[in-house]
Amino acid sequence: MPTSQVRPQQASKCPPSPQHADPYHTRTGQERVIERTDPVLYGVAPQGPNSLTAPQLQQYARDGYLVVPDVFTTEEVDVLRATTADLCSSPRLQGRDELVIEPDSQEPRSLFSPQRFSPLFERIVRDARILDKVEQVLASPVYLHHARVNIKGAFSGRSFPWHSDFETWHAEDGMPLPRAVSAWIMLSENNRFNGPLFAMPGSHRVFVGCAGSTPDENYRQSLRHQQAGTPSGLVMRQLAERFGLDSVEGTVGSLVLHECNLMHGSPDNLSPWPRTNLFFVYNSVTNPPAERPFAATRFRPEFLACRGAVPLR
Amino acid sequence: MPTSQVRPQQASKCPPSPQHADPYHTRTGQERVIERTDPVLYGVAPQGPNSLTAPQLQQYARDGYLVVPDVFTTEEVDVLRATTADLCSSPRLQGRDELVIEPDSQEPRSLFSPQRFSPLFERIVRDARILDKVEQVLASPVYLHHARVNIKGAFSGRSFPWHSDFETWHAEDGMPLPRAVSAWIMLSENNRFNGPLFAMPGSHRVFVGCAGSTPDENYRQSLRHQQAGTPSGLVMRQLAERFGLDSVEGTVGSLVLHECNLMHGSPDNLSPWPRTNLFFVYNSVTNPPAERPFAATRFRPEFLACRGAVPLR
Repeated sequence: MPTSQVRPQQASKCPPSPQHADPYHTRTGQERVIERTDPVLYGVAPQGPNSLTAPQLQQYARDGYLVVPDVFTTEEVDVLRATTADLCSSPRLQGRDELVIEPDSQEPRSLFSPQRFSPLFERIVRDARILDKVEQVLASPVYLHHARVNIKGAFSGRSFPWHSDFETWHAEDGMPLPRAVSAWIMLSENNRFNGPLFAMPGSHRVFVGCAGSTPDENYRQSLRHQQAGTPSGLVMRQLAERFGLDSVEGTVGSLVLHECNLMHGSPDNLSPWPRTNLFFVYNSVTNPPAERPFAATRFRPEFLACRGAVPLR
Repeated sequence: MPTSQVRPQQASKCPPSPQHADPYHTRTGQERVIERTDPVLYGVAPQGPNSLTAPQLQQYARDGYLVVPDVFTTEEVDVLRATTADLCSSPRLQGRDELVIEPDSQEPRSLFSPQRFSPLFERIVRDARILDKVEQVLASPVYLHHARVNIKGAFSGRSFPWHSDFETWHAEDGMPLPRAVSAWIMLSENNRFNGPLFAMPGSHRVFVGCAGSTPDENYRQSLRHQQAGTPSGLVMRQLAERFGLDSVEGTVGSLVLHECNLMHGSPDNLSPWPRTNLFFVYNSVTNPPAERPFAATRFRPEFLACRGAVPLR
């Protein structure tokens, strides 16, 4: 897509969905933890050269995430990382909402919708090494909910608090059910020192409906430092007791499949090495956005959550 | 000491020391990295029941730190941790400089000089399980430079950037040479999730003279979020390349000996578990403060740096 066509979308205003029929109601009063009844694996898909093995599928279903090493080559990743750096320093990105800056420095924190600015990213969105696995897990064609690069620069990259992505996508984007997968590529090594993802293995099987409500234009705050949609310390202690913690680490070019409702967060990057990951969020075409968000007065902009559920293939 | 006698000391004003004869000059212009010529181990001390073994001494000399497990019992640590919590919530500590609050919450970050408020801590300062080891390493009687508890609460504990303690103690407290040891007790488990100390093994053998100068009353800022006395990203990348990184972890009751010039920092605590450590900094009585700080216009208050070099035994 020529970048001259790229314009920030206006968020549309509409009343919130009724809550009473929604098993995942959130930001509506008391915090609550429910056991998920919706599936994690949605069926048995035919096998192909890019498919996950049966043990990999079991691990994903059990833990809510899976690291697949060596999916992308070092050469491919070098180009993706260099393109990210070019985009982040490009004059046409400065001041745009897609480029999110760290809360306490001028370093880039996230770049949203890189596929709108670079044909390379647009190609990778549809790469069969990713799509075959995602469609296998969801047993359905998928569309791209959104894409982003989380940069988390050396020394300056700040933490992300504990949260479930699905909680936000449900509350603010109207995603009805947890039938989505984040597939992310490690563009740098993710190690114990550079602010790796912390996850609670198995926590995708519970849903935390959070207390509080969604402020107007919450994304402007939450992308730099999330507050709405984060569970209380009390609940996080209970979940840690039940599920334990793991640190999701791996080498350059690893692909991580990450169930949309997994409870996760990540600490500061104190190290001299950036921790740069390219995220694609795929949602089943059977699970398009509702007519309105479940706990917000208006939808977030399209660069954060696409509302047209057009299959990628 | 009755707490009614505890008063914040006035910082005394005096001109900075001349820089030209000081191998460790810092905060005086260009950043620079020098190889240390002063010893790390100062002699061979007689062996006793609390002494370090020869391999432990070698490890300390090589890495600049050493974790000795099971020095304090769980019961002892439970009492120390409970006393810390009592002090932090005690009305007599509220608003005092000794109690440092997190930069972005109201949670306690550090409690300085706990030995001034509790006879339990006063006893532990002189505990032979610590002092025997410290005097063995420094081959000298020692005095207490300062004591503190770093609390780093669950979820809220924020990072400490990379620094050498000796750089600050030299610049702001007039400590002439790196002949001091931090001995710290793990009052909670230190694990990969709760913001453990990151150290560069062997970095105590170089000294980074930092660029910039010391702001007036710098400690009021630096205890919450240090800026002066932190090396540049360029130098930190060079040191990481040369020394690598390690994460200093251990169980409750472990004692860590930590050479005063070791380059270290620690990330924020995203976990549901506090990371609480009790620090005692012992300086050789042969190394008392100079007449003035080496790179500050006045000494820091006594609760941060005692200037009376009275041997503890």
